[in-house]
Amino acid sequence: MIIYFRPMRIRDEHKVDAIHEATIKLVNEIGFVASSVAKIAKEANVSPATIYIYYKNKEDLLVSTYVNIKQKMSQSILTGFDSDLPLKDILRRVWLNAFKYISIHQDYFNFTEQFANSPYTGLVNHEELEKHFQPVMSVFLKGVEDGKIKSVNPQLLTIFAFYPVMLLSNSRTCHGLELTDELKDIAFEMAWDAIKV
Amino acid sequence: MIIYFRPMRIRDEHKVDAIHEATIKLVNEIGFVASSVAKIAKEANVSPATIYIYYKNKEDLLVSTYVNIKQKMSQSILTGFDSDLPLKDILRRVWLNAFKYISIHQDYFNFTEQFANSPYTGLVNHEELEKHFQPVMSVFLKGVEDGKIKSVNPQLLTIFAFYPVMLLSNSRTCHGLELTDELKDIAFEMAWDAIKV
Repeated sequence: MIIYFRPMRIRDEHKVDAIHEATIKLVNEIGFVASSVAKIAKEANVSPATIYIYYKNKEDLLVSTYVNIKQKMSQSILTGFDSDLPLKDILRRVWLNAFKYISIHQDYFNFTEQFANSPYTGLVNHEELEKHFQPVMSVFLKGVEDGKIKSVNPQLLTIFAFYPVMLLSNSRTCHGLELTDELKDIAFEMAWDAIKV
Repeated sequence: MIIYFRPMRIRDEHKVDAIHEATIKLVNEIGFVASSVAKIAKEANVSPATIYIYYKNKEDLLVSTYVNIKQKMSQSILTGFDSDLPLKDILRRVWLNAFKYISIHQDYFNFTEQFANSPYTGLVNHEELEKHFQPVMSVFLKGVEDGKIKSVNPQLLTIFAFYPVMLLSNSRTCHGLELTDELKDIAFEMAWDAIKV
């Protein structure tokens, strides 16, 4: 019996990054439907065949791009995470990290918002994805146990604590609002008031 | 001198509605870029020439569709608006109206969210559009004057009071959350806590 070995490929993270960035850019410019694998490959300066090494098809590429953004975001918002700090201070740090991340990566945000409102969102394993945000969830749960945070569905806590950040830090959804440190503090206090007991 | 009279056209509201609905359906399915005037006309069962009677171009049609949804939404959320009720009760009614409207019209919501994250949003006269929501703004302002609502930028009040509604009432952004009356009450109380003094 002759066994053919498929040459082992080393995942080229540079290429993967370039493909993700090209996907985000193109989808934001021309939408999901018009963004073909061929066009994405051209934008990323790789051959379509290269894309098919890493992804089964266009859907797979779109979902992977979405998951990648969410993973990067979770890493970013957990910068300096310190579970020994008082509850409100832990959340303030996460909140400001999220604000900073979205302000810098508005293109990512535009992509994820479009994605979340598209049929592709049904292809994502949301439970798996939420694991990356587990430290924040644990803070919420501890807050609920200690009687400091409202004992409500965790999705409600996320929606009130973090969604306003996404709107505030996005220049397209917020018109003519100057995002000073004072405004960020005020907005964080409003988020806190929504979730605290 | 001979003056040629252009025959006066009566605006056919049925056709305008059909064109708007077709625009929403097509954009949600295939995105802004792929949605051509020709395809929208076909979907609406009218000729492209008919669309050009009412709209200068595709951009004009998209913006008009967006503005139309926002106008309908403002009418809907102001149902039963009674400025003589206590502040919190006025806002609860508006809140529940918004919830109902978005739950029923998830396709409208998907369209407006995509639109707000697209470059087309720059073509909208947002100030003009916000006038339709003036009664809600007046309630906020009176609440601030009376020391019941936080004296912050009105955009912050809107973001915390109403954006969570949009997320909650949309099945695509909220996964596996049963939207009972109890949950709606809890969510409204959270929104109220965010904006109240």
